[in-house]
Amino acid sequence: MVYLTRLEHFNAAHKLYNPKWSKEKNEEVFGVCANENWHGHNFELFVTVKGTPDIDTGFLMDVKKLSKIIQTQVIKKLDHKNLNLDVDFLQGKMCSTENLAIGIWNELVAHIPPIVKLHCIKLYETSRIYVEYFGE
Amino acid sequence: MVYLTRLEHFNAAHKLYNPKWSKEKNEEVFGVCANENWHGHNFELFVTVKGTPDIDTGFLMDVKKLSKIIQTQVIKKLDHKNLNLDVDFLQGKMCSTENLAIGIWNELVAHIPPIVKLHCIKLYETSRIYVEYFGE
Amino acid sequence: MVYLTRLEHFNAAHKLYNPKWSKEKNEEVFGVCANENWHGHNFELFVTVKGTPDIDTGFLMDVKKLSKIIQTQVIKKLDHKNLNLDVDFLQGKMCSTENLAIGIWNELVAHIPPIVKLHCIKLYETSRIYVEYFGE
Amino acid sequence: MVYLTRLEHFNAAHKLYNPKWSKEKNEEVFGVCANENWHGHNFELFVTVKGTPDIDTGFLMDVKKLSKIIQTQVIKKLDHKNLNLDVDFLQGKMCSTENLAIGIWNELVAHIPPIVKLHCIKLYETSRIYVEYFGE
Amino acid sequence: MVYLTRLEHFNAAHKLYNPKWSKEKNEEVFGVCANENWHGHNFELFVTVKGTPDIDTGFLMDVKKLSKIIQTQVIKKLDHKNLNLDVDFLQGKMCSTENLAIGIWNELVAHIPPIVKLHCIKLYETSRIYVEYFGE
Amino acid sequence: MVYLTRLEHFNAAHKLYNPKWSKEKNEEVFGVCANENWHGHNFELFVTVKGTPDIDTGFLMDVKKLSKIIQTQVIKKLDHKNLNLDVDFLQGKMCSTENLAIGIWNELVAHIPPIVKLHCIKLYETSRIYVEYFGE
Repeated sequence: MVYLTRLEHFNAAHKLYNPKWSKEKNEEVFGVCANENWHGHNFELFVTVKGTPDIDTGFLMDVKKLSKIIQTQVIKKLDHKNLNLDVDFLQGKMCSTENLAIGIWNELVAHIPPIVKLHCIKLYETSRIYVEYFGE
Repeated sequence: MVYLTRLEHFNAAHKLYNPKWSKEKNEEVFGVCANENWHGHNFELFVTVKGTPDIDTGFLMDVKKLSKIIQTQVIKKLDHKNLNLDVDFLQGKMCSTENLAIGIWNELVAHIPPIVKLHCIKLYETSRIYVEYFGE
Repeated sequence: MVYLTRLEHFNAAHKLYNPKWSKEKNEEVFGVCANENWHGHNFELFVTVKGTPDIDTGFLMDVKKLSKIIQTQVIKKLDHKNLNLDVDFLQGKMCSTENLAIGIWNELVAHIPPIVKLHCIKLYETSRIYVEYFGE
Repeated sequence: MVYLTRLEHFNAAHKLYNPKWSKEKNEEVFGVCANENWHGHNFELFVTVKGTPDIDTGFLMDVKKLSKIIQTQVIKKLDHKNLNLDVDFLQGKMCSTENLAIGIWNELVAHIPPIVKLHCIKLYETSRIYVEYFGE
Repeated sequence: MVYLTRLEHFNAAHKLYNPKWSKEKNEEVFGVCANENWHGHNFELFVTVKGTPDIDTGFLMDVKKLSKIIQTQVIKKLDHKNLNLDVDFLQGKMCSTENLAIGIWNELVAHIPPIVKLHCIKLYETSRIYVEYFGE
Repeated sequence: MVYLTRLEHFNAAHKLYNPKWSKEKNEEVFGVCANENWHGHNFELFVTVKGTPDIDTGFLMDVKKLSKIIQTQVIKKLDHKNLNLDVDFLQGKMCSTENLAIGIWNELVAHIPPIVKLHCIKLYETSRIYVEYFGE
């Protein structure tokens, strides 16, 4: 079993704001992250798959194809977007890095070719905060 | 002459959108950066001052005081903000990294203690794009 | 199960020196790290907790609270300190990165809120050497 | 159980080219990586061992000895080399990062001192692609 | 005057080998870098232009156009190539990082739009070695 | 004119403490940096030389020789040392990053071969603070 990881980037706006709460409660819980006019981040997304190298290629899978799948299924929906307003798979959920990582897993998992298995989504919100999700 | 640099961070939303132009022209010129629902970045701000080290301290100036000045004069106005909507010194200007660097210089320069001189504002928008401004 | 990691920094002096051994034996075993006048490092500390995101916040726990706990329980005791002389929880132990990581776990574990579990302490001594400890 | 990781570097040329296939099929499968005149990378190699810290040293093992073992058993064979032509343990195998990581594990494992166990080979081909191998 | 910098990457093979010298002299002068079977690097290329921001866009120039010019004029000729064998503008020159930076300047300078001026080529061969060239 | 830069590292202890002042004044001016039991850093040292590439080698100078000069003249005196107690060229001076950069310039400048000129000492104390000195 070998693990292969690909890094992709996206830049997005979001806010942490629970519509069931008052503005005051949102500011109390989320502080500056609740700014109604949004803020944003350069997200760094590490996608890890696992499997056995093919004898003829030496690859688990072609990492350029992995990159293309991540671009098509995830980055296109997130890059230069507003996570709260523009992203279908986050509708009705809080826009935390935790929920974003879970959402990215769910978007990707059906599109990973069966020769490998999706292992981990690791998502940096800033250089000092990241989240990992292993699918369960 | 010695140069001293301090790095600070801020996370902000913005869009590149010229209100004098149609939506179509904005999309043609700015592409995904014109998304009306905003996007955002983790900005990295390097502030450089220059001068001569003091004999008693060995310092050009106390770098913690420099950090505090940057925090008070700049970061507080930019961090977790919308650059287009929330930042007084960007009103009426395009929210490019170029204009943001010039604006940061103008906000800081009068607050730098006279024992040093402000030398450079270096501003990363992403890890692959940065702008430098030397005050003229 | 989601994993959330927060990075904190501290700068400290230490030496690798076993008081039960002669100066010669210490120099033989630890080389330049045994310099009696100390040396030091910029340590980078990654603290990982695991749990389930809260529905109302989207958070495992508020990462600012996690940062505050790490600051109060660990960084305040280590930053700008001498690990051999100033740190109560390292008394009687060798000041290796391994023992420092274990000590940090022990200081933190009782202060992590019960909605999550402490998962990993990852500690960089330099950009080329790091240690991980999972609590057992 | 504590985990200790050491980073080493090497610079090497390689190509992805299956000699059983035509030039056309190689270019179709491997794209620019099949360039017959080679290309190359700055590889970053993280080697992780696990064990229990020694009471007298605080060490799993002396990280300088670990570095020396990696240098002697692996780096000397790979640094400033052509992976396809110059490296005995890659003969007859495709020169993928996956196979290189497995090969490095096999070269190292018998030379790791028995006080620790080899845990992981993590190998960056570029800053955006890496592979991990845990020995099985 | 504002300075705008864009980072691009390329991976290439090369060797340091002066065909006017014997193999022995090449090995004496260039050491492992003279390996006849080549070695390689992940090069990082920073291209800086300078000028005045446009009022309507806030840009010196569109950084995506700058990226495209670098891709077309330089990266396409260097990425996944052998610098000694495949690159027309290095023919008859030693393949040092110094000469590569000068060559990149010469390839780019005529293609930079006249609204800005090419200011600097900064080229990393490894994370510990880089070269800068300002055109004279 | 081309500029060539080499990065070296050293780990050292120091404190900011003016012996002409009381303990109270030192703590007031230098805060935690005045801790009498020292603290320390992983310093990163960038040394830049400038000159014209040699036709036969393509080099300003052999970067391995530059590295060796920095090692011999500077790193050996600073690495795993106490800057206040162990370093002859800092005696009688405050151990600030500013003075350390000037001291490194003075140690190096006479040992740089005349085919190039020493251009800049850039010294990181932490990833957020650095100093540059150009020799005057």
